[in-house]
Amino acid sequence: MAESIRIAPAQAADLPLILSLIRELAEFERLLDQVTASEEQLKESLFGERSFAEVIIARIGDEAAGFALFFHNYSTFIAKPGIYLEDLYVRPAFRGHGCGKALLCHLARLAVERRCGRLEWSVLDWNQRAIDFYESLGARPLDEWTMYRVTGKALLELAQSEMG
Amino acid sequence: MAESIRIAPAQAADLPLILSLIRELAEFERLLDQVTASEEQLKESLFGERSFAEVIIARIGDEAAGFALFFHNYSTFIAKPGIYLEDLYVRPAFRGHGCGKALLCHLARLAVERRCGRLEWSVLDWNQRAIDFYESLGARPLDEWTMYRVTGKALLELAQSEMG
Repeated sequence: MAESIRIAPAQAADLPLILSLIRELAEFERLLDQVTASEEQLKESLFGERSFAEVIIARIGDEAAGFALFFHNYSTFIAKPGIYLEDLYVRPAFRGHGCGKALLCHLARLAVERRCGRLEWSVLDWNQRAIDFYESLGARPLDEWTMYRVTGKALLELAQSEMG
Repeated sequence: MAESIRIAPAQAADLPLILSLIRELAEFERLLDQVTASEEQLKESLFGERSFAEVIIARIGDEAAGFALFFHNYSTFIAKPGIYLEDLYVRPAFRGHGCGKALLCHLARLAVERRCGRLEWSVLDWNQRAIDFYESLGARPLDEWTMYRVTGKALLELAQSEMG
């Protein structure tokens, strides 16, 4: 099976497919209520005046098996970009064929080609199956760090607050 | 003091200053041995053909008091970019004047102006003083997530591995 996986950058024509895959991923994570993405918003943010992320799609035959969405992050200490994998999803019917690894290998090749220092992503702490898989690929946890987020009303308030 | 803090985007002429600030930050974190950044690499990655990150500098009078380096990340579920703050540093002599908050407020304003859904950053788990400060600004931890990284030899091996 493995040799029949093809990975290619998404095109604007793939927008309906990308939205479907995002919604399937969210449903799988039981977070569908958090999805507000529309085709129009995806078009603007991925294929508009400025592209904020890139998408690659894995196909087996003519069928879309999964996707990865990524963007460039940056390491100050080495003054080089990295690749940050925001989402990786393989449709249930296509699991076990190596699509996940193929998508990660593709990103690792892109990272090397683009002279990036790192490939990074985040995983839910309870997802031991994913953690074991990632560690088998040589990934190591940055477990001293916690991400913080300001969003919604708190973001507006911080934006409007006086300095000092 | 607070009204005298001026924040402006860094220019190419600030490259020697940016490198000094990065090295001071690394020294403060006792990670100076990890810094391989040079002015030339910073120039290429920040002001080159493609800019992978942006820098803002806080000045009090004519003196550089601190800086922030950030880039755009992306949320799939809302199909919008966010701002990710990679580094925030205020020189010891200028602490206590609100520079850190002023830099964060500036980024929150940029996030709102650029129609971003979020402002995010990471903090070392033992840095309770920073955590208290961030929580006072309305930031919330994403503490179910751990970041994984592939770098160096493991990244090259993953890039070269066969699919499947």
